[in-house]
Amino acid sequence: MKTKTISSHNNRSMSEQYRHIVERQLASLQYPSSPEELYDPISYILGLGGKRIRPVICLMAAELFGAEIESEEINSVAIALEIFHNFSLVHDDIMDEAPLRRGQETVHTKWNRDIAILSGDVMLVQAYDSILASKNKNLEALLLQFNDSAKKVCEGQQFDMNFENLSKVSIEEYIHMISLKTAELIACSLKMGAIAANASASDADLLYEFGLNLGLSFQIQDDYLDAFGETDKVGKQLGGDIIANKKTYLMLKTLELANEKQKADLERSLNYNDEQKVISIIEIFEEVGIKEHTSDLIQEYYEKSIKSLDQVKVDDARKAGLKQLAAYLMQRDH
Amino acid sequence: MKTKTISSHNNRSMSEQYRHIVERQLASLQYPSSPEELYDPISYILGLGGKRIRPVICLMAAELFGAEIESEEINSVAIALEIFHNFSLVHDDIMDEAPLRRGQETVHTKWNRDIAILSGDVMLVQAYDSILASKNKNLEALLLQFNDSAKKVCEGQQFDMNFENLSKVSIEEYIHMISLKTAELIACSLKMGAIAANASASDADLLYEFGLNLGLSFQIQDDYLDAFGETDKVGKQLGGDIIANKKTYLMLKTLELANEKQKADLERSLNYNDEQKVISIIEIFEEVGIKEHTSDLIQEYYEKSIKSLDQVKVDDARKAGLKQLAAYLMQRDH
Repeated sequence: MKTKTISSHNNRSMSEQYRHIVERQLASLQYPSSPEELYDPISYILGLGGKRIRPVICLMAAELFGAEIESEEINSVAIALEIFHNFSLVHDDIMDEAPLRRGQETVHTKWNRDIAILSGDVMLVQAYDSILASKNKNLEALLLQFNDSAKKVCEGQQFDMNFENLSKVSIEEYIHMISLKTAELIACSLKMGAIAANASASDADLLYEFGLNLGLSFQIQDDYLDAFGETDKVGKQLGGDIIANKKTYLMLKTLELANEKQKADLERSLNYNDEQKVISIIEIFEEVGIKEHTSDLIQEYYEKSIKSLDQVKVDDARKAGLKQLAAYLMQRDH
Repeated sequence: MKTKTISSHNNRSMSEQYRHIVERQLASLQYPSSPEELYDPISYILGLGGKRIRPVICLMAAELFGAEIESEEINSVAIALEIFHNFSLVHDDIMDEAPLRRGQETVHTKWNRDIAILSGDVMLVQAYDSILASKNKNLEALLLQFNDSAKKVCEGQQFDMNFENLSKVSIEEYIHMISLKTAELIACSLKMGAIAANASASDADLLYEFGLNLGLSFQIQDDYLDAFGETDKVGKQLGGDIIANKKTYLMLKTLELANEKQKADLERSLNYNDEQKVISIIEIFEEVGIKEHTSDLIQEYYEKSIKSLDQVKVDDARKAGLKQLAAYLMQRDH
């Protein structure tokens, strides 16, 4: 399973003000001029854009508790999460042998493997630089959370690679993997925003839970859209996960629900050409009722996430932005 | 140029007490049991041994200023440097496609490339974990120094890789490269020990200078021994750098000193078989007087390093350990 970068489809207005702060901060990052092979890939990958979801939700979480999000104390923490995310993309892309990232050449394709390893390493160090540069008074708590999440993201990537070589993966194992690989950094971004803004430990933990469940909901929706999305909204070919034999929730749950005939059909479909394979497997998905099962699970995690946000001890009015963003990510606003 | 791990030849008594603390601390590190593909390589590489020079000199620097080196506050900082060093070895070995490290399989050989990338990443995070675990009151200063040096070590590796593809490298560029790739972490280890022990900024800087020049002296000596060492002391085949066409100080200085005939001889030697090539090139090295030039340079950096140590504002008696260790590293005590 290759988890995906959270990316939008069209609506861009919602979190514009936060993204603006993030872009300005990213643009202000300065790099040594030499060795250029080490630093050019960093400005390249950070310049490829994307929704900047992690720093944006970090800023939004901090604002929830009244922090001045234009201050270095907050936005340097937010930027660290974007730098870390891009570090993980650069290294993951080597492992996945991915030629493209956001429609552009990946670092190891544009330069080479060694440069991708080494510039990724420097980005990880830069993420710590950025946290330090915040001079936030909760530095130690921020770093402890960051370290914990950083290791979990690596664990998620390792489990994901392991799954490629396993004939059997349970749904529980899959959920655990995406909770580490995708949801953890969303949760961490929100919690670090809260910590940076002096939130109470219980509020910081609630935001973490909000992010973790939102991240799970989002990733499973991403799996869903791969099979059932509208091509023009998804912005890519349907059935990519199916063609690549990925063990997504849809596939694992279908294997659980399928009768003997459907299992045999599924087995046979693996040998079809790509187009036929996608058609045939989506048909089996539909037969076992995977649409409803998946939608239910997405909804379940989404509701769980909102429940945590609801419990955070600040005025409900202040939570509108995060709720809107969550709804937007789940494409419930368009 | 592949720079080398600082390793001893026989005398082991000198810094035994410090190494004992380091080994005990390393042995106490705990890893999650899963995913084992991520954590097994970490205990494997840290378990391969070595002189533990970086944490040892960190402890010695801290002791210089009266710190209790058995305390978590100090030894967790020291261990971070060993973890970082091993992180860099794991990633460098991928880039160098090295099959062996300390006579055992490298991580990417024993497991695979992707596991080596990812477990290296986790080690870098663990180095920060270890600094945090120290709960040292100078945490911010320690992290700032660590970040700065970490980036420089990566820069050194990048320059080293660049040099492989350059036809012309100046001696100045070579010295700059080894100062980043090898000497920086020695200097950093000493300075972080000083910072952790509340040394004054000027004393911390003097220890940094001591380490930087000692590291340069050591690396150039390592180049020297590759050509002129006694096989049983060096513990490996002579002429490895020559066979691999490495642009060491010896080669660069010889190119500078050689007359037209010697340059032509050098050029011709590149096509000889390994044994003939080593004999022929060492002959040219000797002709141009490289032994004296190199010994002078080693001596120059060594004296510079001792001069910095001499200026540190603590009792000279307290400096005996570091001086002995420096002499030992330079093989001046046996």
